[in-house]
Amino acid sequence: MILGIDIGGTKTAFGFVDAKGVVVAKDTIATTGHTDIDAYVAAVKAAGGALMKSAGVAAITGIGIGAPNGNFYTGEVAFAPNLPWKGIIPLKSLFEQAFGIQTIVTNDANAAAMGEKKYGAAQGMKDFIFVTLGTGLGSGFVANGEMIYGHNGFAGELGHVIVDRSPAARLCGCGRKGCLERYASATGIVITAGLMLAEDKTDSLLRDKIGVLTAKDIHEAAEQNDELALAIFDYTARILGQALADAVAITEPEAIILFGGLANAGDYILKPAQHYMEENLLAIYKGKVKVIRSTIPDNDAAILGAAALIAN
Amino acid sequence: MILGIDIGGTKTAFGFVDAKGVVVAKDTIATTGHTDIDAYVAAVKAAGGALMKSAGVAAITGIGIGAPNGNFYTGEVAFAPNLPWKGIIPLKSLFEQAFGIQTIVTNDANAAAMGEKKYGAAQGMKDFIFVTLGTGLGSGFVANGEMIYGHNGFAGELGHVIVDRSPAARLCGCGRKGCLERYASATGIVITAGLMLAEDKTDSLLRDKIGVLTAKDIHEAAEQNDELALAIFDYTARILGQALADAVAITEPEAIILFGGLANAGDYILKPAQHYMEENLLAIYKGKVKVIRSTIPDNDAAILGAAALIAN
Repeated sequence: MILGIDIGGTKTAFGFVDAKGVVVAKDTIATTGHTDIDAYVAAVKAAGGALMKSAGVAAITGIGIGAPNGNFYTGEVAFAPNLPWKGIIPLKSLFEQAFGIQTIVTNDANAAAMGEKKYGAAQGMKDFIFVTLGTGLGSGFVANGEMIYGHNGFAGELGHVIVDRSPAARLCGCGRKGCLERYASATGIVITAGLMLAEDKTDSLLRDKIGVLTAKDIHEAAEQNDELALAIFDYTARILGQALADAVAITEPEAIILFGGLANAGDYILKPAQHYMEENLLAIYKGKVKVIRSTIPDNDAAILGAAALIAN
Repeated sequence: MILGIDIGGTKTAFGFVDAKGVVVAKDTIATTGHTDIDAYVAAVKAAGGALMKSAGVAAITGIGIGAPNGNFYTGEVAFAPNLPWKGIIPLKSLFEQAFGIQTIVTNDANAAAMGEKKYGAAQGMKDFIFVTLGTGLGSGFVANGEMIYGHNGFAGELGHVIVDRSPAARLCGCGRKGCLERYASATGIVITAGLMLAEDKTDSLLRDKIGVLTAKDIHEAAEQNDELALAIFDYTARILGQALADAVAITEPEAIILFGGLANAGDYILKPAQHYMEENLLAIYKGKVKVIRSTIPDNDAAILGAAALIAN
């Protein structure tokens, strides 16, 4: 039994995962408010211990942690803007001291990619790209059966390749302009919707929701055959597909697996993304790279991903 | 002792490489004209045997072959436009039958990357990108100490990421438009020079050579402080640096190693490429990725690279 912990900006989800990849018990505690890291680790330990007891878990063999800016090599979380701790936090050693058990830390997208490899759509794959289309765009590249962590543990930032160098390029939270995640993510598609609603006067179900629009609203409008919503998906998928074609030229994966809020739009994003990727692929890759959806349930993905760090 | 064979469109270079990475003897035969693959393999065997005798090489432990479109997994060369054989050629099995010894095949850029890792500037590196700036732009990505071959052996085509999606994008030999290698290569810089000489009326040493210009001429003019030549390097390095910054976001290498005709311009290409890469890097990568020149002599690179396939 492995304890998988997903540290998010708002809450920390944790659960016990058995050898078959079943989350046998799970719970959450707040991350927000825990500005003292030692008190936070103690709170996770107390809540984890309580859940262990109530679920009848006898012992755990390791702890996997997925966290924003988590570093596989150092076991630290460094300068994570969405977490309550400043500077560099040695998560791995803090958890190993508190729990007395092996702990592995990595960033949330890499953890989710490992979860996909162990329990999801990437089972048996040695070369794939995992892409999570949420608030931002996170990714994990697996080659030769191994996660590409990079020289300092910071590889896999597909969300920050530049897809627009024109003056109109969108400003990114990273301080640069034109990053993929400002176009292809749950956030990006909402920005696109706002721009297209302003520029295009076509009637649309989305006009009622200007200002409070979500990726889910655009998906629902697309299901009603709303023309503008379909155009918004097409625009988003074109930029994503072009960027995926470039990524394929580097690692030549067997598949690209999409996960997260925007991926929940299913074929509305998958089909045009595959189409535009194909259109932009070098001939030797055409017809050889699948674009598929994650098979891990959204709710369990982070816990399973964290657990996969140990199970793998 | 390993036999390293580099199959080029015009000639085939081969040599015996000792355990220290010294090419103890080398020779070439023509590739052109050998339209019959069996006769070609026999010719390599005859020339290799003669060189073995004259150099006093007692025995070889393996054969490494670098060839355009060479595939590490299948040992084949498939549909290589610059080689005299049509269709799919099972190079590995043909050489193993002829020589009775283990043979490994891969494409020329991947072979050169392995040579750099074993004998050159990438010794001891687990994560680096090797880029050869010749007629085209070839590359090899190494992560976790291993070459990224991809699902079908076609990874590492950095020369075919798209860097210009505007109407002015240059047509590439692959049939698409805007590929990096049409800008950042010995060929690409000559195209840039032609365009800049046409558009810009500045006096330049290069005006005498319109139509017969080479990358070497541009380098020599830059050494004379020719303003237009320096601007041509700046333009080329900017496009290369931007593409390298995007590649860093995927595999986060320790270093990027430049090789080939255009890399021979040394700091005229290296310094601005590093500058533009830095300018375009995500903050977490800034100041952490070296752009360096290959330390393998041009003449021996292909043979050493091929030999490294066996020695590695």
